[in-house]
Amino acid sequence: MTKEINIGLFGFGSVGRGLYDVIEAIESKEIHIRRICVRDISKERGVVADFTDSADEIFADPEINMIVELIDDAEAAYHIVRRSLENHLPVVSGNKKMLAYHLPELIELGHKMQTPFLYDASACGSIPVIRNLEEYYDNDLLVSVKGILNGSSNFVLSKIFNENMEYGPALRLAQELGFAESDPSLDFDGWDSLFKLVILTIHAFGIYVAPEKIFRYGISTMNEADIRFAAEKQRRIKLVGHVEKIEGGGVYLWVVPQLISRNKYIYSVEDEFNGVVIKGRYYYKQFMFGRGAGGHPTGAAVLSDITACKYDYRYEYKRMNSPLPVHHTNDVTHRIYYRFRTEEDATLIHFSKVRERYTSPEWNYIVGDVSLADLVAVGDKLRGKEIFLAAYPWD
Amino acid sequence: MTKEINIGLFGFGSVGRGLYDVIEAIESKEIHIRRICVRDISKERGVVADFTDSADEIFADPEINMIVELIDDAEAAYHIVRRSLENHLPVVSGNKKMLAYHLPELIELGHKMQTPFLYDASACGSIPVIRNLEEYYDNDLLVSVKGILNGSSNFVLSKIFNENMEYGPALRLAQELGFAESDPSLDFDGWDSLFKLVILTIHAFGIYVAPEKIFRYGISTMNEADIRFAAEKQRRIKLVGHVEKIEGGGVYLWVVPQLISRNKYIYSVEDEFNGVVIKGRYYYKQFMFGRGAGGHPTGAAVLSDITACKYDYRYEYKRMNSPLPVHHTNDVTHRIYYRFRTEEDATLIHFSKVRERYTSPEWNYIVGDVSLADLVAVGDKLRGKEIFLAAYPWD
Repeated sequence: MTKEINIGLFGFGSVGRGLYDVIEAIESKEIHIRRICVRDISKERGVVADFTDSADEIFADPEINMIVELIDDAEAAYHIVRRSLENHLPVVSGNKKMLAYHLPELIELGHKMQTPFLYDASACGSIPVIRNLEEYYDNDLLVSVKGILNGSSNFVLSKIFNENMEYGPALRLAQELGFAESDPSLDFDGWDSLFKLVILTIHAFGIYVAPEKIFRYGISTMNEADIRFAAEKQRRIKLVGHVEKIEGGGVYLWVVPQLISRNKYIYSVEDEFNGVVIKGRYYYKQFMFGRGAGGHPTGAAVLSDITACKYDYRYEYKRMNSPLPVHHTNDVTHRIYYRFRTEEDATLIHFSKVRERYTSPEWNYIVGDVSLADLVAVGDKLRGKEIFLAAYPWD
Repeated sequence: MTKEINIGLFGFGSVGRGLYDVIEAIESKEIHIRRICVRDISKERGVVADFTDSADEIFADPEINMIVELIDDAEAAYHIVRRSLENHLPVVSGNKKMLAYHLPELIELGHKMQTPFLYDASACGSIPVIRNLEEYYDNDLLVSVKGILNGSSNFVLSKIFNENMEYGPALRLAQELGFAESDPSLDFDGWDSLFKLVILTIHAFGIYVAPEKIFRYGISTMNEADIRFAAEKQRRIKLVGHVEKIEGGGVYLWVVPQLISRNKYIYSVEDEFNGVVIKGRYYYKQFMFGRGAGGHPTGAAVLSDITACKYDYRYEYKRMNSPLPVHHTNDVTHRIYYRFRTEEDATLIHFSKVRERYTSPEWNYIVGDVSLADLVAVGDKLRGKEIFLAAYPWD
């Protein structure tokens, strides 16, 4: 496309502001933010820029030749991306939730309109995971992608495990430092990780799995007992997004706290950092690590998407057109740790094999094998109770 | 290009065989090794394939539509790559030495002939560093690339620092395991790291610096005294390739053992692994980690280059055409540790500031500040003596 980029920016929260700062800092003669659309135009933003609260004004501006969408509201973000593509305007999006629900449709639209549509910054902030999966691992060697995809929950877990902080104060600190999403359940109940996992899975294995079909469990009910259990086993609890291809072409996904042992790369991913382990036949394991949250790192990632757009880069979704078909499956069994209080709660989960059972006046737990299909089936019944579960891998 | 790839492969050493295995394993219907050119055709290879010792036969075969060059001999590799490009045959190369000396010319030729020429596997085996620098960090935020680029020397250093092995047995073990180059000085005197650094610098900062202009120092004279010094400071010695942009657009490069402190990512890169830290303004640090040596991981990386070639992917060398000029400089000062025996050797290095001096009957050392220009000037005079030096960073 043309050398000169004039951006119509939607949103001026932490990442929008981060992008603004980064573009100022590089003193680019080719990339400009021409106009910024915000909900509340009366709010003091502390920068000299052309603000508007009208999306129509952005789309009517003939000088604007790229849309960058960095707003919180997934529904509004969806309409902005659609409208951009329909108008042949290259668009960069950072909205994981919107992408996780609408990607297949938007990929098709972008393809039909022959218009670039990039969103690398949406998953893992500054780590170029999508671009890597897309560009580099284009062969059938890929086995799994597993990682800490959410910076805020990892920050809280780090404070708990390394500094003996309690959950409440650790959460407040994360919010003060600007790491946490405006809605904390996005981070701590695993939604944010789940959305990113859905996006990564499209690029890793060429298959779209809707968020509601995927087992998701967060860390908000984790307590002292769970922390003690982990410490006794020399493990740390990490909130992990995980997609893996098994024999026969089945692909399973889940977002779940995991008891991670010391010899694993992600054991040492601390604070607001993200870390992703990509495992393949023959190349074994690769590990990518970087800042996954914060306005400036994510803003820098958005800038990379903008530059890529400028060079007409497009995701090719090569695996979606792969001759080797894969399918979503929950037909896989994992060992889990399940902590509960009442006998009724004990029966919620169907263990195909109970390996350990601990009972005390304060808390009880079972270590045993469960199929992912059974976990999906019990789903929402696990929430809002005095229980906690975590994957307890053998290695 | 066409869907069906028929490869003319040069070389069937560890990486060539690795590539063969990986292609067999994926059962690709589209990628075939049609013919393999080796020096010694009488040698038993243990595979059923069409071997030849004539390059002409490869180039005369009308079915062959891609050349993959994985031989040891840099001069021969150069001619193979040239001939491929001149014949409009896409070519994948893994020969770091050849690339480090001939890249500018070959880039120009590839461009002129409009023929893809990829070499991601040449630097850091299975870690896609070049592709990342090329594709993702296309902005002026990049500050430095620093890493453990050689698996064999790192393997030996790991055995020494973690298992108290001595240099000789550790080296023999590396050779037995197939990590070491056929000429050990390539690994242990820093040549291999240097070649990779030259390649990475082209993609990171758009500047070619010839190997002979770069200060290079290896680990072959490291002894008990140096290991003790490092241990006392709670550091480990790692052989590091490092390129950094400083104020004013100067770019400096060096390959040198470094005393790395515990809080650094590369401190924990062990055995034959490679690890690269990419540092930028606003995104701070990213870390990529993976297997940097061995036939299968490198073979898998070569396969990725082959697939990328198939999709007509080309490096764009965007920074070589950047409007912001950079230049090579040695005008930078570092703190180093310098161990020696004689007073004459003590004066070899011109310290702008001596910070510590230790004298004993067995060995002496100076910790002090030296300009990189002075190190380059003294250059070869440092070799073949009972001395050792290592960078001793402040952090």
